[in-house]
Amino acid sequence: MSTLVLKFGGTSVASTELIKSAAKIVKKEYDNGHNIAVVVSAMAGTTNNLINYVNDFHSSKSDSEEFNTEYDVVVSSGEQVTSGLMSLALNEIGVPAISWLGWQLPIITNGPHRNANIRKIIPDKINECFKERKVSVLAGFQGLSSESRITTIGRGGSDNTAVFLASSLKADRCDIYTDVDGVYTSDPKMTGKVKKLDKISYEEMIEMASQGAKVLQTSSVESAMIENVNVQVRSTFSPDQEGTQISFDVDENQAKAVTGVAYSKDEAKITIIDLVDQPGIAAKIFRSLSNQSINVDMIVQNNFIERKKTNMTFTVPMSDLNKSLDVISSLKSEMNFLQVLSEDNLSKVSIIGSGMRNQPGIAAKMFECLSAQGINIEVISTSEIKVSVLIEKSKTNDAVNALHDVFELDKP
Amino acid sequence: MSTLVLKFGGTSVASTELIKSAAKIVKKEYDNGHNIAVVVSAMAGTTNNLINYVNDFHSSKSDSEEFNTEYDVVVSSGEQVTSGLMSLALNEIGVPAISWLGWQLPIITNGPHRNANIRKIIPDKINECFKERKVSVLAGFQGLSSESRITTIGRGGSDNTAVFLASSLKADRCDIYTDVDGVYTSDPKMTGKVKKLDKISYEEMIEMASQGAKVLQTSSVESAMIENVNVQVRSTFSPDQEGTQISFDVDENQAKAVTGVAYSKDEAKITIIDLVDQPGIAAKIFRSLSNQSINVDMIVQNNFIERKKTNMTFTVPMSDLNKSLDVISSLKSEMNFLQVLSEDNLSKVSIIGSGMRNQPGIAAKMFECLSAQGINIEVISTSEIKVSVLIEKSKTNDAVNALHDVFELDKP
Repeated sequence: MSTLVLKFGGTSVASTELIKSAAKIVKKEYDNGHNIAVVVSAMAGTTNNLINYVNDFHSSKSDSEEFNTEYDVVVSSGEQVTSGLMSLALNEIGVPAISWLGWQLPIITNGPHRNANIRKIIPDKINECFKERKVSVLAGFQGLSSESRITTIGRGGSDNTAVFLASSLKADRCDIYTDVDGVYTSDPKMTGKVKKLDKISYEEMIEMASQGAKVLQTSSVESAMIENVNVQVRSTFSPDQEGTQISFDVDENQAKAVTGVAYSKDEAKITIIDLVDQPGIAAKIFRSLSNQSINVDMIVQNNFIERKKTNMTFTVPMSDLNKSLDVISSLKSEMNFLQVLSEDNLSKVSIIGSGMRNQPGIAAKMFECLSAQGINIEVISTSEIKVSVLIEKSKTNDAVNALHDVFELDKP
Repeated sequence: MSTLVLKFGGTSVASTELIKSAAKIVKKEYDNGHNIAVVVSAMAGTTNNLINYVNDFHSSKSDSEEFNTEYDVVVSSGEQVTSGLMSLALNEIGVPAISWLGWQLPIITNGPHRNANIRKIIPDKINECFKERKVSVLAGFQGLSSESRITTIGRGGSDNTAVFLASSLKADRCDIYTDVDGVYTSDPKMTGKVKKLDKISYEEMIEMASQGAKVLQTSSVESAMIENVNVQVRSTFSPDQEGTQISFDVDENQAKAVTGVAYSKDEAKITIIDLVDQPGIAAKIFRSLSNQSINVDMIVQNNFIERKKTNMTFTVPMSDLNKSLDVISSLKSEMNFLQVLSEDNLSKVSIIGSGMRNQPGIAAKMFECLSAQGINIEVISTSEIKVSVLIEKSKTNDAVNALHDVFELDKP
């Protein structure tokens, strides 16, 4: 008998009919004799409706502690509704079930409202349910603060609840049911040759997620890696398919050099020319941007040692470009740089693979491939298992297709 | 400095705009220096939407403990949302506020899910808020069971929460804000001459409510009477008007004989002819009807002592007539009565007033008035402060108008 955590996302529980379908998936695992805990998101659309309500009370105080506290009370109700409905659906088809809200277990969180972190899930009530052969249905995305207030957890949301729950229960598997049937070598909308991956490592999945693949949030995969949770991404709509397993690499030497190609569109690039190269300058720039909630991605710096000057290039989401330029302008008198250049309508395209560590020449192969397509590379940034390039947005499709081909991602 | 409980019903908080209006009413009382606790219903329509979701999982098990438990989890979320939004609205206009859910105070209930009773509201957290000059916003209609599950309370709902809260806080006043500006001598839809009552006694209000007036649920008024809570019914849409105060009669001798005229349409009448008159017969009939959840109202029995037979007449809602006739038929072999007659499309019209106790001839005056209108009385039933008659439904309007005139309810 295994212990399984099954998580259903918003599109998988978007209506009472879909909740009934999802309940059948749960029943099948239950009938196999497993201990089952379910985590549910809010019905698709619900969270946005609730946020719209809350935003009607938006003002200068909107980031106050009071605002964020009540935001959590309102928005967490979405998952509460689904947890009750899923439990009803299970009982209806003969699977004994009970719902649990964050405060009931409890799911202990710290950190600020709207962006809390799960510290601990007390599994006692769920373990009691296992003894009675009862399924527990947890409202995802929510927890309890040290002041006994409802919190919602930040990025990763219900996926993070599922991963932490699997860890608390020492579950054998954490199945993330969503509207796609696994993790693909690239976005099926970009290239027809995509192949579903049977396996992917945590690190690869983290890179894929942070480079634009939307199956799982980066922070959930990071949690899974830290907690050593065996995650499967599976489709609610074809539950008999195996999906993609996310876990540690069994044999790094057998790993493919490149596992997938990811992209994110709507990037903008800012270059500060002839910045005085002295300690603390970079810190000042990026702290000022961060204070305005601007999320800087790639950062490249070229020093001209003889001139004691430097050029600094970084990317931001296109929607933050104007705000970013304002921030930089406000620093001009203090920083004494020459000028600021910017460019928008760019895309970031990345190749990702654990095997990259042991296979030299992967980056070179990528650059040659893009060059052969006549695609100009604006910025390059690399990590151990990833190479990212910034290119013209209109060339995204060509780049993704060409890279998918050259690394033979459609081959077994 | 007084302590006030302000309760806003579903139509008073039906949109974020209306919540903002209601918040201004709260602010006005707060700025007068009072301690304020607010109770909110779900936004109008929300509860029905949630019940529709739940009913999609309706089956033979629908009255099971599991069903009712999860029903409460889902349906209570409506008031949760409003409590958060009202608190946001108050903070936005400079009134420090915090929401409280049933489990947080807690509001301790017993009795079954979906129909729990409030036993106790622990006021400590609210009293702490008073000390900090902070308004507490309670989600109405919900509480906590001894198993630490969410419950919803039965009839009376959020009004009952408000009354119990006022009692727990020893509040000076419990203002029930709704979409009418008080209790009227009759239904304004029935007669143009209605007058708003400045005062009404608990007992009169209970009779008004149970005879069809929809301003407050009977059980809430009963709670208010038992807990000696000073209730005011006021309009959210004309908050400067005084409304109607519900309390004990100051001087019963000064009370008007008739305070109001109430009615309920869609009644049906069943008469069982020549029932053997022996102990336990009535009990058997009404237990059988009650087992089918049929709510019997007026009951009249005429005994024919010499024949040892009796005719039994009672009324039920028109929608329950066929079910009721089935129940009675199933008892025929056992009961050995002669026949069953029934009639539908009837109305019950009632006159209500505490002063009736001290003024003879009120019933006679009512019957004369109806007779003068050519209205036939089918059944009569009376209590200390009420006389009800069953009449043809099409005559309801005439009866209400004539009674309103004859008892001069439009006069001061």
